[in-house]
Amino acid sequence: MQRLSETDRLEAFSDGVMAVIITIMAFNVKPPDGASLSAFHRLLPGLFVYVLSFAMIGIYWNNHHHLLRATGRMDGAVMWANLHLLFWLSLLPIVTAWVGHYPLHPLPAVSYGAVGLGSALAYWVLVRTIIRANGSDSAVARALGSDLKGRLSPALYAAGIGLAFATSVLSYVIYAAVAVMWFIPDRRLAEAQEAT
Amino acid sequence: MQRLSETDRLEAFSDGVMAVIITIMAFNVKPPDGASLSAFHRLLPGLFVYVLSFAMIGIYWNNHHHLLRATGRMDGAVMWANLHLLFWLSLLPIVTAWVGHYPLHPLPAVSYGAVGLGSALAYWVLVRTIIRANGSDSAVARALGSDLKGRLSPALYAAGIGLAFATSVLSYVIYAAVAVMWFIPDRRLAEAQEAT
Amino acid sequence: MQRLSETDRLEAFSDGVMAVIITIMAFNVKPPDGASLSAFHRLLPGLFVYVLSFAMIGIYWNNHHHLLRATGRMDGAVMWANLHLLFWLSLLPIVTAWVGHYPLHPLPAVSYGAVGLGSALAYWVLVRTIIRANGSDSAVARALGSDLKGRLSPALYAAGIGLAFATSVLSYVIYAAVAVMWFIPDRRLAEAQEAT
Amino acid sequence: MQRLSETDRLEAFSDGVMAVIITIMAFNVKPPDGASLSAFHRLLPGLFVYVLSFAMIGIYWNNHHHLLRATGRMDGAVMWANLHLLFWLSLLPIVTAWVGHYPLHPLPAVSYGAVGLGSALAYWVLVRTIIRANGSDSAVARALGSDLKGRLSPALYAAGIGLAFATSVLSYVIYAAVAVMWFIPDRRLAEAQEAT
Repeated sequence: MQRLSETDRLEAFSDGVMAVIITIMAFNVKPPDGASLSAFHRLLPGLFVYVLSFAMIGIYWNNHHHLLRATGRMDGAVMWANLHLLFWLSLLPIVTAWVGHYPLHPLPAVSYGAVGLGSALAYWVLVRTIIRANGSDSAVARALGSDLKGRLSPALYAAGIGLAFATSVLSYVIYAAVAVMWFIPDRRLAEAQEAT
Repeated sequence: MQRLSETDRLEAFSDGVMAVIITIMAFNVKPPDGASLSAFHRLLPGLFVYVLSFAMIGIYWNNHHHLLRATGRMDGAVMWANLHLLFWLSLLPIVTAWVGHYPLHPLPAVSYGAVGLGSALAYWVLVRTIIRANGSDSAVARALGSDLKGRLSPALYAAGIGLAFATSVLSYVIYAAVAVMWFIPDRRLAEAQEAT
Repeated sequence: MQRLSETDRLEAFSDGVMAVIITIMAFNVKPPDGASLSAFHRLLPGLFVYVLSFAMIGIYWNNHHHLLRATGRMDGAVMWANLHLLFWLSLLPIVTAWVGHYPLHPLPAVSYGAVGLGSALAYWVLVRTIIRANGSDSAVARALGSDLKGRLSPALYAAGIGLAFATSVLSYVIYAAVAVMWFIPDRRLAEAQEAT
Repeated sequence: MQRLSETDRLEAFSDGVMAVIITIMAFNVKPPDGASLSAFHRLLPGLFVYVLSFAMIGIYWNNHHHLLRATGRMDGAVMWANLHLLFWLSLLPIVTAWVGHYPLHPLPAVSYGAVGLGSALAYWVLVRTIIRANGSDSAVARALGSDLKGRLSPALYAAGIGLAFATSVLSYVIYAAVAVMWFIPDRRLAEAQEAT
């Protein structure tokens, strides 16, 4: 029988973590403590931030998938860079729950941005580690040539963190803007994958 | 080594989410606060609605499986349509827990129906997106020709939502009826798959 | 690219559910409310019953694995019989937690036995459904010829349920005895698999 | 269609358990009960011990992966030795949460070390069981010739457990030292895998 490739297993493990994150995060939008309309209203901030966090995980899942599909070679450094990304994503349910409880306070908004920033940097590190493992003239390296979105994300998250001290709502607008920006999977990577 | 296909990975990720949903949902039927028969009785509404939700996930898992088996081509739109379905399904544990706590109140019954409706529409969108990616003369498109059940489900859920304001018990009867209707995997899809 | 077989996907989904059950169940052995030795003592009943439940899931995982490896053909009935087994197993974390809180009360012991009985019957149904799908002269059917353990388990669980009303400790001894009996994966199935 | 190998399924199941452990463990770093800086401070011990536990799971995932990649043959004993390792790892979320709540008490520190010790011994047993199944002149056996780290880990955990009665902080330093020692995947195993 044929064995699965290393990359398939890395993808499967990452997908497993992301699948659990999504479900845990959803479930933490706790059922209301009553059955009245006002009990339902108290649920809404948690539901909104869950939508944002779900979109974020969806984006990482999608981009991670395209990245690994374009990847030929793996090494120990790639494995640890990938675990590092999963570490940051695994913190998302905590800050999502925190923001859901205290949507208008600065500290939860800062923490949410910090997890977003950490994830964005971890993804950037993962991309660099994969390029180093595959050589700078590999398909994945050329495809990622000028990774604009990858460099914009951390800057935007940092801006959102700063704004949280003024007004947390503006932070969430910026975090949502990052999500919208990433929504479309990176065309260049998708093309590189087609070519292989 | 051979890589897994895109469709396999989409299936695996969706299966992962559904596996966690089932277990989280089951676990939320919290162990009773005592060891008496009356403590056990308080568990029963939660157990009944869990059976219904389990059946719902089982049906989606089964149909999703047959749908993807009949699918030849995937694109970014299919991936997002699939995530959109998982988003709705990920809300099922919350409303299941809510209904378990307040089985006779209208609002939980409405919310349960809303999640059912959202899931049914998301599944319908996923089917359309897959057909568009594969062409209207593809095996999957012909197999789904007149998707009666896919069009009946949202209507029934909407009816259940309306009835919840009169009596929530009737809503649950309708939600259960939708489950029964979907119980048998779509024969036409299963046949299309055999043919490929 | 090659697709995974139906059986592989059924196995993967079942494994996913069982993996989550194990972890959820473990986690429900809540960290003590203090850091003293007496706080640790209160943890012990939950820890013991977790060991039993872990062994039970481990046995089902192992036997399920050997069963599906010996299986050639699948149909819709097999899929639903498998979901039915997962339904019963998904209730295990609830009764495990309940027994952990009230180890000496009859009702939790009865419920634990009921989940064990339901799982054993569901496994028996799954085996029959697989044999029907593969024909009574298939490798899997001949391998299972006289399934002694499969017929003993429900009887033992039923006995344990009855004894719970006298003394719950005796029930747990019987439940543990079932686990010990199943510990060794069914040799006949393993051999059938070798032969294919 | 081709079936997955036994080893792939064992890996997939183990990965599933480890993926859920990571996420459950992260999530148990509960969102603070307020939105103030002091509420955030109370989160920090839990966050630190989570980083340590995450590293521990990451190390086991990585080494387990390399071990199974170098493994040719499996039998029932290997499956149970693997489940035994997963049993110990599944206790990690409990002690992680306990240490997070009572970082300076001896008993949580002892328990954390006990789970680390149990996991290290279970991994050592798994390695021996795999070598026995593959023969002492197999690639995996020769690669593991003198398993220094595998023998040092239990000793270090035992030392940490002893020190916890004096000062828990020193225990955590030792537990962290074990993590650092294991950080780099075993080169000899990686090489054995290349050779096959």
